[in-house]
Amino acid sequence: MVLDSNSKKAIALHKLLKGKIIVTGKIRKLKRNQIKLIYTPGVAAVCEEIFHHPEKKWDYTSKGNNVAIVTDGTRILGLGNIGPYAALPVMEGKAVLYREFGSISAFPICLNETNKEKIIAAIKAIEPAFGAINLEDIESPKVLEISEELEKSLSIPVFHDDRHGTSVVALAALLNSLKLVNKQLQSIKIVVAGAGSAGYGITKLLIAAGCKNIIVTDSDGAIYKGRTKNMSKYKNELANITNSKREKGELFDVMKNADVFIGVSGRKDLLNGEIIKQMNKDSIIFALTNPTPEVKPSIAKASGAKIVATGSYLYPNKVNNALVFPHIMRVILDKKVKKITTDLLIATAQAIANTIPEKKLHCDNIIPDMYNKNMQKNIFRALSKLYA
Amino acid sequence: MVLDSNSKKAIALHKLLKGKIIVTGKIRKLKRNQIKLIYTPGVAAVCEEIFHHPEKKWDYTSKGNNVAIVTDGTRILGLGNIGPYAALPVMEGKAVLYREFGSISAFPICLNETNKEKIIAAIKAIEPAFGAINLEDIESPKVLEISEELEKSLSIPVFHDDRHGTSVVALAALLNSLKLVNKQLQSIKIVVAGAGSAGYGITKLLIAAGCKNIIVTDSDGAIYKGRTKNMSKYKNELANITNSKREKGELFDVMKNADVFIGVSGRKDLLNGEIIKQMNKDSIIFALTNPTPEVKPSIAKASGAKIVATGSYLYPNKVNNALVFPHIMRVILDKKVKKITTDLLIATAQAIANTIPEKKLHCDNIIPDMYNKNMQKNIFRALSKLYA
Repeated sequence: MVLDSNSKKAIALHKLLKGKIIVTGKIRKLKRNQIKLIYTPGVAAVCEEIFHHPEKKWDYTSKGNNVAIVTDGTRILGLGNIGPYAALPVMEGKAVLYREFGSISAFPICLNETNKEKIIAAIKAIEPAFGAINLEDIESPKVLEISEELEKSLSIPVFHDDRHGTSVVALAALLNSLKLVNKQLQSIKIVVAGAGSAGYGITKLLIAAGCKNIIVTDSDGAIYKGRTKNMSKYKNELANITNSKREKGELFDVMKNADVFIGVSGRKDLLNGEIIKQMNKDSIIFALTNPTPEVKPSIAKASGAKIVATGSYLYPNKVNNALVFPHIMRVILDKKVKKITTDLLIATAQAIANTIPEKKLHCDNIIPDMYNKNMQKNIFRALSKLYA
Repeated sequence: MVLDSNSKKAIALHKLLKGKIIVTGKIRKLKRNQIKLIYTPGVAAVCEEIFHHPEKKWDYTSKGNNVAIVTDGTRILGLGNIGPYAALPVMEGKAVLYREFGSISAFPICLNETNKEKIIAAIKAIEPAFGAINLEDIESPKVLEISEELEKSLSIPVFHDDRHGTSVVALAALLNSLKLVNKQLQSIKIVVAGAGSAGYGITKLLIAAGCKNIIVTDSDGAIYKGRTKNMSKYKNELANITNSKREKGELFDVMKNADVFIGVSGRKDLLNGEIIKQMNKDSIIFALTNPTPEVKPSIAKASGAKIVATGSYLYPNKVNNALVFPHIMRVILDKKVKKITTDLLIATAQAIANTIPEKKLHCDNIIPDMYNKNMQKNIFRALSKLYA
């Protein structure tokens, strides 16, 4: 494996840190006389209070600010099934961002278990110490089934970042991009490459937001009503709500006259100049696969794309769910949101998009920076109305 | 429920803090150019390194310093089965002490599940992100069976604090107490009240350390070979290695001529002056049940006990496993100890006991304070020899 310079630096940093997260007490330099309060015997009274008044668990413990980042390691970034151990650096990175941008305590739960029922059982078992579950990088469609089942049986919300987070950031970026090319959601043709969790989430959210003409592709080409090869419950659902003309064929074929390409395919060489040249004028390319996007931004631009975004921190227009998950989770926890709804996702996307004033919008600035402090304020304000 | 002043303070503090622990990044105030190292795309190279060289998980992640504090809430302190939610304040308190005294990241895993097989399955599932498991406040004998099974199937150590930690601190306190009353381990009579995890662990460790004459009691009185009522695999094991004269009867009966009483019964009014008066001269009382000991130290002293210790931070001689678990776990993690052995426990007890120089030993100073910095050094030095 030949490593680029960023990868080498990343490995060196991880080796230096020996892991990126710690669990620590809120009281630093615990004093002697505090031990009998935070531990025995004082803590017993706190336990009994919660036992007699269960709702006090939200007041007396960290449950309400704890998030379990749960993976089974089967679909880590675009790397595939590398297992729960190799998954850990991603989950820790996510925990770092949850703390840094959302003031949230997130802890990696990397499961040594890929069986659907057993994953569900493990998550149900660990529920009590957490205020929310973040499902992460679990292969599709299994993860969608897990998510559906957990929504029924848990009393805390299940945020599925690959689906929910990616859909919000993609919609936010699209809303701003369309302002720049002066097109409307309702009248554009969008190709979504990838029918896993992200493709499923993005497509559903785009339709809820008003898009009428979407074609989803996977490794077998366009998904259409009546296709039989390599389908699932969720792909059938997509077939029913997209591609009304039942277009068939490869990505190359369906990209003809597309206005927008959204890549969440996990395939780094999926796109090339020839395919991009099939698209309409002022085309928009979101090549969101990580760590390596579906096409290099320079190639996309050279092939006529007007706006190009990736999920990577190496290029401008970072359409990465890291922009979403710490902030939306902050609101989910604070407002004790039970279920992730389309309204919640659209309102979040709009708040993120609106963070960039129109006069500051340009083709390399379609989405706010992670460090933009107005963004969290905007999200919180927008969602406070929603959960007023 | 009438609350004492310490309990009221404890509740107020928990309400103020809203939970005692946080998860946070090791890098504070993350810089923009660090995100591409700790998260995508740089983190992908770290994942791939671990995928190809699994042993690097110890170098590149926090696994090696993460401990899961696992409970099902069935036997919280002396409060009984109050469930996984009411258990959380204890587990968080424990996590605070792990950080403060052992520089360890411990996270509460409070299981919504009391079935033995399902608890085992959940712990096996969450193994990857942790360097060790700390079983906590799970009812006996179930927890002993869980521990046995996990020792066979996990590749990380299973520390059972109620058993291992309590046995170490009890032995340490006993070693120093015997110096003060000038008696020998080999020739004293010890009554252990309580045949749960703590009673089982203490009895086994005392025998390994050289004690010849121990009687264990439970709610049905003395345990002896041939008893049939309310027995278990583990109580039968105790019956076979203790009480060689097959003494029967209540606690009152077997306390006759006892030199040492060790209470881990979970019953706050178990002991009284009349029972204590049955004991030999220079009697030693360790009333270790939390939050309220088997007898008030003042009553024990008034009834002739020479040395009295409790597990509570309200009295002198704090024989609490908090003295043990952060330090022994530090060594377990650093030395990658796979199995908790008798040698490890005895060496730790001796190191703790020896921390108090003989000239500073007295009846109200038999065990070091939690803040004693020499203690950790002593433990580390003693165990470094063991794992050289």
